[in-house]
Amino acid sequence: MKKINLRLRRKATPKSTGTVFQPPGTISYVGEERTGEVTTETILYDVDHYSKQDGIFLDQLKEDRVNWFNIDGVHDIKLLEKIGAKFHLHHLLLEDIANTTQRPKTEFYDNHIYQCIKMISYDAENNELNEEQVSIILTEDAVISFQEKTGDVFENIRDRIENSRGRIRGVKSDYLFYALIDSIIDHYFLVIEQIGEYLDRLEDEIFIEPTKDSLNQAQDNKRMLLKLRRAIFPLRESISRLLKEDSSIIEKRTHAYLQDAYDHCIQIIETVETYREINAGLRDMYLSSVSHKMNQIMQVLTIVSSLFIPMTFVAGIYGMNFEHIPELTWEHGYQYFWIINAVIFFTLLGFFKWKKWI
Amino acid sequence: MKKINLRLRRKATPKSTGTVFQPPGTISYVGEERTGEVTTETILYDVDHYSKQDGIFLDQLKEDRVNWFNIDGVHDIKLLEKIGAKFHLHHLLLEDIANTTQRPKTEFYDNHIYQCIKMISYDAENNELNEEQVSIILTEDAVISFQEKTGDVFENIRDRIENSRGRIRGVKSDYLFYALIDSIIDHYFLVIEQIGEYLDRLEDEIFIEPTKDSLNQAQDNKRMLLKLRRAIFPLRESISRLLKEDSSIIEKRTHAYLQDAYDHCIQIIETVETYREINAGLRDMYLSSVSHKMNQIMQVLTIVSSLFIPMTFVAGIYGMNFEHIPELTWEHGYQYFWIINAVIFFTLLGFFKWKKWI
Amino acid sequence: MKKINLRLRRKATPKSTGTVFQPPGTISYVGEERTGEVTTETILYDVDHYSKQDGIFLDQLKEDRVNWFNIDGVHDIKLLEKIGAKFHLHHLLLEDIANTTQRPKTEFYDNHIYQCIKMISYDAENNELNEEQVSIILTEDAVISFQEKTGDVFENIRDRIENSRGRIRGVKSDYLFYALIDSIIDHYFLVIEQIGEYLDRLEDEIFIEPTKDSLNQAQDNKRMLLKLRRAIFPLRESISRLLKEDSSIIEKRTHAYLQDAYDHCIQIIETVETYREINAGLRDMYLSSVSHKMNQIMQVLTIVSSLFIPMTFVAGIYGMNFEHIPELTWEHGYQYFWIINAVIFFTLLGFFKWKKWI
Amino acid sequence: MKKINLRLRRKATPKSTGTVFQPPGTISYVGEERTGEVTTETILYDVDHYSKQDGIFLDQLKEDRVNWFNIDGVHDIKLLEKIGAKFHLHHLLLEDIANTTQRPKTEFYDNHIYQCIKMISYDAENNELNEEQVSIILTEDAVISFQEKTGDVFENIRDRIENSRGRIRGVKSDYLFYALIDSIIDHYFLVIEQIGEYLDRLEDEIFIEPTKDSLNQAQDNKRMLLKLRRAIFPLRESISRLLKEDSSIIEKRTHAYLQDAYDHCIQIIETVETYREINAGLRDMYLSSVSHKMNQIMQVLTIVSSLFIPMTFVAGIYGMNFEHIPELTWEHGYQYFWIINAVIFFTLLGFFKWKKWI
Amino acid sequence: MKKINLRLRRKATPKSTGTVFQPPGTISYVGEERTGEVTTETILYDVDHYSKQDGIFLDQLKEDRVNWFNIDGVHDIKLLEKIGAKFHLHHLLLEDIANTTQRPKTEFYDNHIYQCIKMISYDAENNELNEEQVSIILTEDAVISFQEKTGDVFENIRDRIENSRGRIRGVKSDYLFYALIDSIIDHYFLVIEQIGEYLDRLEDEIFIEPTKDSLNQAQDNKRMLLKLRRAIFPLRESISRLLKEDSSIIEKRTHAYLQDAYDHCIQIIETVETYREINAGLRDMYLSSVSHKMNQIMQVLTIVSSLFIPMTFVAGIYGMNFEHIPELTWEHGYQYFWIINAVIFFTLLGFFKWKKWI
Repeated sequence: MKKINLRLRRKATPKSTGTVFQPPGTISYVGEERTGEVTTETILYDVDHYSKQDGIFLDQLKEDRVNWFNIDGVHDIKLLEKIGAKFHLHHLLLEDIANTTQRPKTEFYDNHIYQCIKMISYDAENNELNEEQVSIILTEDAVISFQEKTGDVFENIRDRIENSRGRIRGVKSDYLFYALIDSIIDHYFLVIEQIGEYLDRLEDEIFIEPTKDSLNQAQDNKRMLLKLRRAIFPLRESISRLLKEDSSIIEKRTHAYLQDAYDHCIQIIETVETYREINAGLRDMYLSSVSHKMNQIMQVLTIVSSLFIPMTFVAGIYGMNFEHIPELTWEHGYQYFWIINAVIFFTLLGFFKWKKWI
Repeated sequence: MKKINLRLRRKATPKSTGTVFQPPGTISYVGEERTGEVTTETILYDVDHYSKQDGIFLDQLKEDRVNWFNIDGVHDIKLLEKIGAKFHLHHLLLEDIANTTQRPKTEFYDNHIYQCIKMISYDAENNELNEEQVSIILTEDAVISFQEKTGDVFENIRDRIENSRGRIRGVKSDYLFYALIDSIIDHYFLVIEQIGEYLDRLEDEIFIEPTKDSLNQAQDNKRMLLKLRRAIFPLRESISRLLKEDSSIIEKRTHAYLQDAYDHCIQIIETVETYREINAGLRDMYLSSVSHKMNQIMQVLTIVSSLFIPMTFVAGIYGMNFEHIPELTWEHGYQYFWIINAVIFFTLLGFFKWKKWI
Repeated sequence: MKKINLRLRRKATPKSTGTVFQPPGTISYVGEERTGEVTTETILYDVDHYSKQDGIFLDQLKEDRVNWFNIDGVHDIKLLEKIGAKFHLHHLLLEDIANTTQRPKTEFYDNHIYQCIKMISYDAENNELNEEQVSIILTEDAVISFQEKTGDVFENIRDRIENSRGRIRGVKSDYLFYALIDSIIDHYFLVIEQIGEYLDRLEDEIFIEPTKDSLNQAQDNKRMLLKLRRAIFPLRESISRLLKEDSSIIEKRTHAYLQDAYDHCIQIIETVETYREINAGLRDMYLSSVSHKMNQIMQVLTIVSSLFIPMTFVAGIYGMNFEHIPELTWEHGYQYFWIINAVIFFTLLGFFKWKKWI
Repeated sequence: MKKINLRLRRKATPKSTGTVFQPPGTISYVGEERTGEVTTETILYDVDHYSKQDGIFLDQLKEDRVNWFNIDGVHDIKLLEKIGAKFHLHHLLLEDIANTTQRPKTEFYDNHIYQCIKMISYDAENNELNEEQVSIILTEDAVISFQEKTGDVFENIRDRIENSRGRIRGVKSDYLFYALIDSIIDHYFLVIEQIGEYLDRLEDEIFIEPTKDSLNQAQDNKRMLLKLRRAIFPLRESISRLLKEDSSIIEKRTHAYLQDAYDHCIQIIETVETYREINAGLRDMYLSSVSHKMNQIMQVLTIVSSLFIPMTFVAGIYGMNFEHIPELTWEHGYQYFWIINAVIFFTLLGFFKWKKWI
Repeated sequence: MKKINLRLRRKATPKSTGTVFQPPGTISYVGEERTGEVTTETILYDVDHYSKQDGIFLDQLKEDRVNWFNIDGVHDIKLLEKIGAKFHLHHLLLEDIANTTQRPKTEFYDNHIYQCIKMISYDAENNELNEEQVSIILTEDAVISFQEKTGDVFENIRDRIENSRGRIRGVKSDYLFYALIDSIIDHYFLVIEQIGEYLDRLEDEIFIEPTKDSLNQAQDNKRMLLKLRRAIFPLRESISRLLKEDSSIIEKRTHAYLQDAYDHCIQIIETVETYREINAGLRDMYLSSVSHKMNQIMQVLTIVSSLFIPMTFVAGIYGMNFEHIPELTWEHGYQYFWIINAVIFFTLLGFFKWKKWI
């Protein structure tokens, strides 16, 4: 199987060439090269019970409890196929899980729902967004979550399950499904806040001392906002479908929570759009700053040149060696020379004052 | 409970990180840090009766009158829970009231309506918009309004109730509900008028004497208009839903008033959009002003340099110490020198005149 | 009653603060301060009869004729209330008539239709648009028109009624209603033609000799086009509603005429949008003109400086007083000096020619 | 009758003032002044017969054949009225035919269809689009086409009818109706191709040697594309209506052809939009070219000035007449002077090289 | 038959003039001049059988197998007509196949489906997109594909058929139809990736060392993205219609695959739009780079001129030949001169340091 090592700096590659010219439906991992071992965990709970184990124990699935199988790594195709067989997943669905360049989407199957979603974190060092694709499958009594690698934003959910905080232990798998999505969306707010702060700093920098790199950073910001937008726009549609589609797996009382998540999506979208507008405005501020500086430079040049060039000309005249330059022999010729220069100097100075250049 | 002290200068943080990683449905205050006491008032009235008391007296609720409970401060979670219990409010609704970073929205419940709305005022000193979230709950015979802090735009309503001005005393709680919303919308007109005046002043400043800060202020203006837009757009939808949704709590005759409020929203939206366009035009005017100034500076430099540099050259020639420079010994050499210079001078002057640079 | 004196120069105040904090439904004049007397006229006609009187004679209303009451001035609230009582007008409608900052709209009542529309004229002197709100009420056998002040675009209609030109005398009040609207829309074409001509002149000016004020005028133009757009867009919707809503007051055969008026609205909208695009293009033309001029100035400066500065340096060398400068004593030193300078001069000249700067 | 002589250079007057203040429904010519005689022709054909005559012979109309009446000139109101009477045309329709500033539209009447369409040709000399309004009326067995003046794009149709090329002789009047529309749309492709070529030339010119006029021409191009857009957008709607509306006059098998014409409209619209984007990009290319040139000029100025000004200063020092300047008396003073200058010269040259300015 | 040799450099000619003034329905080749021989191949297969032959053997069509006829070249009208006769294709459809300037579209006929689609490849050498029109006809048991010339993106499909890879051999012609479309769409990803890389390189170039050609290349990029957009937007609609329209030829189980292709279209569209935004941002980066460079040049000029011009003036003074210049006779006059110059020099240097110009 061909794996693709994507250029990671700034590019937003839509779909890697890895799957091109593969027969459709072939399950093959597409994404950043990953060779690490796939780690897994199994959490089973209901109001009274709770167990957590490393590894996937599909045969321990208990129908009266919520079974959460979490897989960190989708490059182990055999594991995918094993899980697919257990839960009767469509081969196109497995292909989607293994392809980490999917667009967020929701798909409804007879007895399960597939949700693809992007987990995004802000990498302050490189000022870029890291994206990890999370696939969540919801069945009547199980939730299977696939992540690209270890480390996620679900710690609080694990904690709430373990310590029975909130209502999570008393409700069914659809609530856990919602909780995972909500956790990812909540994390977008953190990302957006960091972009917002970066935007503020950049705005200050451009106003005070714009550098050659300033607009470059605005362009980077634009890329980040575009990336965020590409993650959140389809997610909004997705959740809207979860709300509208009448699936028996999602209970009515979970709808209020999904509606809440939907509202958050709208809020994020609005903020992203606002930031995009503010970011676009940076360019005008930059131009303003730069043209202001240019004007100042030109003023200094003009003032100095205009003051001294005429006076240098006058000095040049009396440096000439004509035999008959009457002024040279005048008694106070040199004093007159200074008077003429003073007149030139102060006249020009007054002119510049009047022009408000000094 | 974690409280968040938001950076207040210009940032429009959508949802604070305070609620991230909290189990959904947990009621916790989100917004600017507030420690002041929550002040409350209870106003009861019908055509014949009127009473006003400080404090919330939920047990005095009279079904045949309009009961207005106003709470200034939503950081007292216990009070929220008490009111929630009395009126059977959903815990997600209480969470929304306590989270002051909500998007304006309307929610219909079985026997009450929840309206979230932004009260906006213009802070001329810092040239920014202050935003306060108002949550209004309408039941059959009561209106409960939650504000972030003391001070509001409802004085005229209190006055109309107390003095029986207009029809407010003769109608039911839905009219009071409308009156509160209308009061807030009316206040937007004041805000927009002040932004408009600021825009005019800025336009004049940019035309007459643009400073480095001018485009910065246009950017600030843009932020304000974006903020206003984010408050008014969802409000329009909201009122549209109040008009369309067939709720028994809102009487038919109140619809004409809500339609009026809806028209005002449209008017505000159109003005905001117009101002955004005018604001965007400021940039062109700025460029025009700056390039005009730059042209003037360059013209002065060019004219002075072009006039005197050639003449200085001529002076330089006759300052040379060659043994045989015939002109130096001519009788009228010095006079000829001046004639040559005059020719150079007036030729160039004519050239500049022709170019319309002077 | 509080009257508002609006800043009239360029501002497009949406709704004056005059009505803020007034109980909804209070009839109060909002708009430019007007103290002049309200003038009125009453025109009655059918195929065979015609009468015209100054003053409003509501008691002379004849059911078998078309009764046109025209009121120039809406600041006389008592007159409004008298008319409102006679025709059973809703108090919110009267409030709308008195508020001259309304958005154009159509409202259907049980036995009358209310149309709000903006009469616009171009003030060439100040290059701005004057706006006057016209409210027209259509009942089964009467048309009541309210204008802000004396002077309108209805002279041709009065003339057609008096002299039985066209079909106006033979048809009912809905045709007169249409004719008034059509007359106002037709006037928009005049306004648009004048803006178009202004735009052409401005384009020529910017191309030939752009001034500091040029982009300012483009900004003013933009404001005018925005104002026109804000008048015509809702009017289009309005007429569309008149066509769709099935009112018994408007006869089927009038629909063809209203459709015609609708087409004109579309045509005006398209022209306004075209002009907005052309107006936006002026900025690029301005930049082009200005940068062209700047380039020319810089070229002159560069050419003059580059030609003479090196030669002045050469002259400076031989003006030095070193004891041993061999060239100074050469027999043809001075001639050689000129040859060197000529070489410098023509080399540089050739370079500039090659660069196409001269 | 009032005729209007429109300013023809670049203006896109929407509706002339000629009809303003005329009673609606008055048939009056609006458009460019035309005094030439109206020329007409009558073509009758079916599979077996064909006749062509100059002049309009309405009484020769044969119900079993296709009767095509073509009128070149709509300023002969009497002729319009005669034709109107013969075919029972609505007076508003006749008004539309005579008003050459109409927007393209389709109108369905009981037994005829009215199509207004713009015939556009590219005037390479003035780089502008000439527009001629064509009105086509389709009845069961006749097509009446009105043009503004002699000369059209229908020659190929006349040829196909005369020589029985294609299927035109075997089908009914609706096919001729389609063929006329199709011919006009096909001509748009020619116009668009010429604009495209002009755009390419302009792009090359701006890249190689932008002139002051370049952006002006881009603005002219923009006007042309806007004009084309205003002709083609409503036409698309129009044909869409011809396809949807269920008129008995248009046979089902003609639908495939109309669908084809519709596809062509879409194609033209897409190209127009593409060209508009490319045209907008010219501005950036112009800025790029101009700023490149400016940079070059400034570099030359800076290099020459920076090289010679310091050296001239050094020469100035030793041109001074102080009594005690020790260097002047050094034996190799003059040589040292040259060494100092060489150092200055090559240091600066190195600096410019490092800056990549030379 | 008239063939058109299109200008191929950058132009996106929509429809060639070749068909203008041809009777509609005339089959004539439109596109780049092609004289090469048309090559064809016939592939027949089912689960058990497979045969591949050069040439079109229409009479070998086997109803129980999938018959794929591939024709490379659509300028052989006779061949088209032969195929058309065999499969009862509409003459307008044949006209569409021969016209290679079509817009992508899907057309449903009684027993076949016509799909027009653009095969796009990136020509790195000229940095442009090559476009080839592919027409695919799907009948119950056959797929006929028409390409403009030899060479395509279907090699993997031929391979999968020959070697029974994937499910292609076990399913019907509609799957092959899908596979061809999918293959072309997959190729778009390659194109988009190459444009993305080019965009990155251009971004780096503009940041580090922008040339006169940089914005030109951005304009070329824009053209490519517009071309891609014009290919993919209608394709999305097309596939959407394939999904919605209930054709008996396309089996239900193929829908999942078409949905997949649809998702890919959306992904490509989103990436194209993202790239268009990033491309638009290049202009700002260019301006930033150029203005930065200009500022640097001006600073050098200003610093050098401002430092030396005043000092040259001072030197000029003491080069004058006045009889009485007292300073010249001072013992340490020359030393004082240097002190004055040093003061001037370091004062100005300090000023520039303070201004942060050096």
